[in-house]
Amino acid sequence: MSRNSIRLGLVGGGDSSFIGGVHRAAAALCGRYTIAAACLSSDPARARQFAARIGIAPDRGYDSFTQMAASERARPDGIEAVAILTPNGLHYEVAKTFIRAGVHIICEKPLTTRLADARHLIELARGSDRVIAVAHAYTGYSTVHEARARIKGGALGAIRIIQVEYAQSWLATALERSGHAIAQRRTDPELNGAAGCVAAIGSHAFNLASFVSGLSVREVSAELTAFVPGRAVPDNAHIMLRYAGDARGMMWISQVAPGHENDLRLRVYGDKASLFWSQRDPDNLIFSVQGEPSQRLVRGGPASLAEGPNPMRAPSGHPEGFVEAFANLYRDVARQIAAVAEHRACDPAALWVPNLRDGAQAVAFADAVLESSKRNGGWTQLSPIE
Amino acid sequence: MSRNSIRLGLVGGGDSSFIGGVHRAAAALCGRYTIAAACLSSDPARARQFAARIGIAPDRGYDSFTQMAASERARPDGIEAVAILTPNGLHYEVAKTFIRAGVHIICEKPLTTRLADARHLIELARGSDRVIAVAHAYTGYSTVHEARARIKGGALGAIRIIQVEYAQSWLATALERSGHAIAQRRTDPELNGAAGCVAAIGSHAFNLASFVSGLSVREVSAELTAFVPGRAVPDNAHIMLRYAGDARGMMWISQVAPGHENDLRLRVYGDKASLFWSQRDPDNLIFSVQGEPSQRLVRGGPASLAEGPNPMRAPSGHPEGFVEAFANLYRDVARQIAAVAEHRACDPAALWVPNLRDGAQAVAFADAVLESSKRNGGWTQLSPIE
Amino acid sequence: MSRNSIRLGLVGGGDSSFIGGVHRAAAALCGRYTIAAACLSSDPARARQFAARIGIAPDRGYDSFTQMAASERARPDGIEAVAILTPNGLHYEVAKTFIRAGVHIICEKPLTTRLADARHLIELARGSDRVIAVAHAYTGYSTVHEARARIKGGALGAIRIIQVEYAQSWLATALERSGHAIAQRRTDPELNGAAGCVAAIGSHAFNLASFVSGLSVREVSAELTAFVPGRAVPDNAHIMLRYAGDARGMMWISQVAPGHENDLRLRVYGDKASLFWSQRDPDNLIFSVQGEPSQRLVRGGPASLAEGPNPMRAPSGHPEGFVEAFANLYRDVARQIAAVAEHRACDPAALWVPNLRDGAQAVAFADAVLESSKRNGGWTQLSPIE
Amino acid sequence: MSRNSIRLGLVGGGDSSFIGGVHRAAAALCGRYTIAAACLSSDPARARQFAARIGIAPDRGYDSFTQMAASERARPDGIEAVAILTPNGLHYEVAKTFIRAGVHIICEKPLTTRLADARHLIELARGSDRVIAVAHAYTGYSTVHEARARIKGGALGAIRIIQVEYAQSWLATALERSGHAIAQRRTDPELNGAAGCVAAIGSHAFNLASFVSGLSVREVSAELTAFVPGRAVPDNAHIMLRYAGDARGMMWISQVAPGHENDLRLRVYGDKASLFWSQRDPDNLIFSVQGEPSQRLVRGGPASLAEGPNPMRAPSGHPEGFVEAFANLYRDVARQIAAVAEHRACDPAALWVPNLRDGAQAVAFADAVLESSKRNGGWTQLSPIE
Repeated sequence: MSRNSIRLGLVGGGDSSFIGGVHRAAAALCGRYTIAAACLSSDPARARQFAARIGIAPDRGYDSFTQMAASERARPDGIEAVAILTPNGLHYEVAKTFIRAGVHIICEKPLTTRLADARHLIELARGSDRVIAVAHAYTGYSTVHEARARIKGGALGAIRIIQVEYAQSWLATALERSGHAIAQRRTDPELNGAAGCVAAIGSHAFNLASFVSGLSVREVSAELTAFVPGRAVPDNAHIMLRYAGDARGMMWISQVAPGHENDLRLRVYGDKASLFWSQRDPDNLIFSVQGEPSQRLVRGGPASLAEGPNPMRAPSGHPEGFVEAFANLYRDVARQIAAVAEHRACDPAALWVPNLRDGAQAVAFADAVLESSKRNGGWTQLSPIE
Repeated sequence: MSRNSIRLGLVGGGDSSFIGGVHRAAAALCGRYTIAAACLSSDPARARQFAARIGIAPDRGYDSFTQMAASERARPDGIEAVAILTPNGLHYEVAKTFIRAGVHIICEKPLTTRLADARHLIELARGSDRVIAVAHAYTGYSTVHEARARIKGGALGAIRIIQVEYAQSWLATALERSGHAIAQRRTDPELNGAAGCVAAIGSHAFNLASFVSGLSVREVSAELTAFVPGRAVPDNAHIMLRYAGDARGMMWISQVAPGHENDLRLRVYGDKASLFWSQRDPDNLIFSVQGEPSQRLVRGGPASLAEGPNPMRAPSGHPEGFVEAFANLYRDVARQIAAVAEHRACDPAALWVPNLRDGAQAVAFADAVLESSKRNGGWTQLSPIE
Repeated sequence: MSRNSIRLGLVGGGDSSFIGGVHRAAAALCGRYTIAAACLSSDPARARQFAARIGIAPDRGYDSFTQMAASERARPDGIEAVAILTPNGLHYEVAKTFIRAGVHIICEKPLTTRLADARHLIELARGSDRVIAVAHAYTGYSTVHEARARIKGGALGAIRIIQVEYAQSWLATALERSGHAIAQRRTDPELNGAAGCVAAIGSHAFNLASFVSGLSVREVSAELTAFVPGRAVPDNAHIMLRYAGDARGMMWISQVAPGHENDLRLRVYGDKASLFWSQRDPDNLIFSVQGEPSQRLVRGGPASLAEGPNPMRAPSGHPEGFVEAFANLYRDVARQIAAVAEHRACDPAALWVPNLRDGAQAVAFADAVLESSKRNGGWTQLSPIE
Repeated sequence: MSRNSIRLGLVGGGDSSFIGGVHRAAAALCGRYTIAAACLSSDPARARQFAARIGIAPDRGYDSFTQMAASERARPDGIEAVAILTPNGLHYEVAKTFIRAGVHIICEKPLTTRLADARHLIELARGSDRVIAVAHAYTGYSTVHEARARIKGGALGAIRIIQVEYAQSWLATALERSGHAIAQRRTDPELNGAAGCVAAIGSHAFNLASFVSGLSVREVSAELTAFVPGRAVPDNAHIMLRYAGDARGMMWISQVAPGHENDLRLRVYGDKASLFWSQRDPDNLIFSVQGEPSQRLVRGGPASLAEGPNPMRAPSGHPEGFVEAFANLYRDVARQIAAVAEHRACDPAALWVPNLRDGAQAVAFADAVLESSKRNGGWTQLSPIE
């Protein structure tokens, strides 16, 4: 909208996708992008139709992402960044193409469905100055930044325990066998990988815990279950985690938990204090110093350490939600891109965005979880991402 | 962004305004508007500078709203709608100008600071097909629509009691005497009227209660207080209300209540059931049928009656916030404008937006409250808005 | 049970009474009383039967309270204290009898149904050293003591606003016409006075607000309603209050509010901080200093100012409930009685129990509320209790 | 108090014990016991002094539990039941003595510190009609009974997932090395066994989950940690559980979690619905049927299935707490004892009390957890209790 808008392309995220709408809303809310090109379906007619519907010029609504990469590269006003919103199994090919095209990338999670692919993307991107972000977008919440800033600043002391859970209910029945397209895709190991709920939402929980605590996971012991008869991928995961240092953690991931629409909760305990955050109440953070009353830290309220949200949004007490968190991520990516364009160092506050390496670690985590579960819960090391 | 975008102008809402940013974000999130012109300051240099910063073409960044109305009218691509975001005392003049210019209007609340002015706007607009909305935007929350739909459908039975409150803390000290610009403006009776907190936030509470319950207030008994020494307008209001029929209500409005960042809460009790909504937890509605367990109704969840939010936004369980509520209002205004443009009846679901008459009633309410307080709490009828 | 047990008599509170069981449980839990005599019904057979059932010796199960007062007085092991648990309309006669008998008294609220009667009891008791407590037992919660201690200590600064409400749902339908004995009694103006919900539960809200804030009410403006057709007493009250000094308050009392089993909530706002307490979560107190994060003060937790609960009960984090609050009141009355018996000053901490004067003030409040409502909400002074 | 009172003896629970006070309060509140004898210390002077303080006759304040068992047996009015409240390491010897004496028993948890001892107690009690209850008293909450009744009745369908946690903060620092007597005892493996937090509070979590779900644990995979340097027993446990059938569970036990005074929480998910209970809000149960809004089930409220609490206590909406839960357990034990005395079958509702076998299973659980942790989290079967 502004003349400094970054020209953004979309691959995937059409019609029946919910995340497509979220990315477009986030880009709009952020205010620093113009959606200039899109490849929204592999069916040419649908791709054109949907592109037109969201205001893409006719010649920039593509039905092939390789063609889109080539054509856009040839234009003086070609896209500068691309959002990859396809089914998980295609992330790798699309990302590869746009890394080679020198375009900045915002890739939906999980980065890839195979760890080797994630490693290959890292290899391809080595030495490039292009920004590659992975949309583990729960890290975009202002209160999540606040939690990370407090822990980094030592407010919790040495971290001992990390409890994280991500519970949903929407797959509690065999929805994929009732003609529900999204459920079919999500539970199809070919399209989305064998890790099921671990990749779909566990990767968020994993990323969030590491993002906030600053600690990496060394090894896991996991029990995966497919509770719904006939389901080809796990819909529930119980995982114990050993973090770097002496910290220990536990993770529960479920898509078969009645009562939970979308409950991602993180609790971090140090030897001095603890922090609790819940995605359902994202404007608040509970901070409990040992021997003192618990405090409710409100977004933008007294005692905030972290850089606030976009000042063009709502003040403290006016709730921010999911799209705002996404928009914060888009904003920080835009700031990184601007720094690259202007050949200057980026404001460190804008670097708190999950990157290619973070995305690869979440894939390594899913791999280790699958492996541990096959080994009857034996402790399994995460393959290192260098 | 889309080719069907409504060309929107802004009057006010520049630099130091928080609400300006919210309107721009809402318009962007809604996705149906392009901000095409603006008059963001009466200081020509600042007006141009700020207009440029938000991407307005140089020739459409005005420093006079009358000039803006005239120039835009003369253009083939002139603005179709305007958002009025000035200090309250100017709403009347600006609205008058743009009603005369035949432009659709979204006006910040309170509509005017004087009831006679509000009546005059109604007079001026009589017979016109232009859309005039007043940004009592809490009504934009999907859960608020759900509450209204349930009550309209009879789920509560006959309404008996309405308890509404709007508490903030930010004026608990004499902020206006410490150089805080917004506090100065908000507590200045010349700029914002004599009703202080009643106009600033009480008008929201009043509107919300009427919007949800479908009932209008007949008379009020009020006690206004300025707790902060030297403050020229009330910062706290205690009000009893008699609604049409036999319903009775109570309202508490405060800007001096430590612990409340921005707490707007509504409870409606009928002879069959009750509903509770809180702005701090806006994705949930508590519904309690007499003799049954209380239910938590989640936005977009099972049993939803109301039309959902914009499908391009987050699904149930992914919180929506303040900007989304505003964007819902912008969306519905866009749908009304489209119906006008296409000479067809508007989808009734898009008509649940506070209009000129609703805005005038909130002004009449503030008037009656001031009058009752002067009369030591004597019951005072609201001047009817026909 | 212990050899220092106070011998307690009961008048009323038999069979169908819930409050009778609560008093017996509280006395037992407190551990300082032995129930030695009782007059539990005016029907001799039922009185004997019920007395036997709760372990009263046959010769001390009376069917007349006057006979009980006389007989017990004549015994060397006669009762030292009496709990008055009859329908409200009888409190006066029973209290008069036992004041004359020189027995300590714990009287259920409201103290009397007529203010003149309350004044007469004060007159009768003047000069006596007997303890007379009124069971506004919500004041017995440890967290309520903590709130009072904090306010007394200046933590809130000058009190500005007091918001109190007491909402129930059990009378939302015409229960009294369906053969429900307690509902019949409670809505019978002959038995329980004309003030309906104001006496039944409003007296608690009034007492609690005064107890915690340390402020007395000067005048009220009230709107009473009987929402259930045919009901002879008000079942809903909206009240504005002017406290001593400049504090202002609001009270909502209802017995027709679906969703509320028994919700008594108090919020007190000063110029420095606020406190929030809810009977449904009685182990916690929310304390919000202006400009700082809100704190949750847990019973017995860090930063407690008030004397804790009975150390023979559960530690911090193990919830205390209604019976414990009652037992705290019984404990403090026992400590007062012990001080009288031992001719020594009582520990000031044991004096935080509503007394005859407090009980009379609650009656004066109900009177003023009825009067104001008759006068269409005109501000009405509380008759002073000297 | 009543003439049908059960004569109760106490072993342990003197002076510095908090649980002693809770048992006495529960017995008093229940109203069916008279504390007739006690052995409250192994120090004769302290034993006598403390016994006198709680009203025990001088000749029945013992300083040896074996002497107490013998003397009481010889009296016509000897104790009928005994509460065993000593340090955990002594439970076995005391229980053995009183089983042999034919006295009913309420034993604090954990039943024993060694599984062999628990088995021996089962052996000794075989064929006896004496009641032996283990005070896993969280099962006494009315809402916990409601949860069990609903699951037993099929409301959740087939159970899939059980998430239970018990977190405290009080041992987050090295309290045992600062002269804190209770902390010293609790962290002393000689006195309280090697299982630390697993025995102290994990046994409650284990018992509660089994009690409510009706499922038994087959095997566990555990990670025990002593986070406080120098601590001789684990203060944190992460445990995965495999239940009978296909249910899977997770348990977190911690005494080093700042912000948690005493947080026991249970969530059970079936293929139809889920239930959530938290000890900090024990009057409410959240019940979520897949595809319907979540419901809050209030104790004694609409739709209650389970037998309510003692009718002599507070009605719905008046919170019950920890002592009430204990008193419910005491009440049900009294009902069982009465059935034995009267040679009749016991009301099935009174049998929902953890018994000797349940106590032994909790010991077997702690054993398996210790064993699994030593084996680096290898899945370890629970030794069966037949």
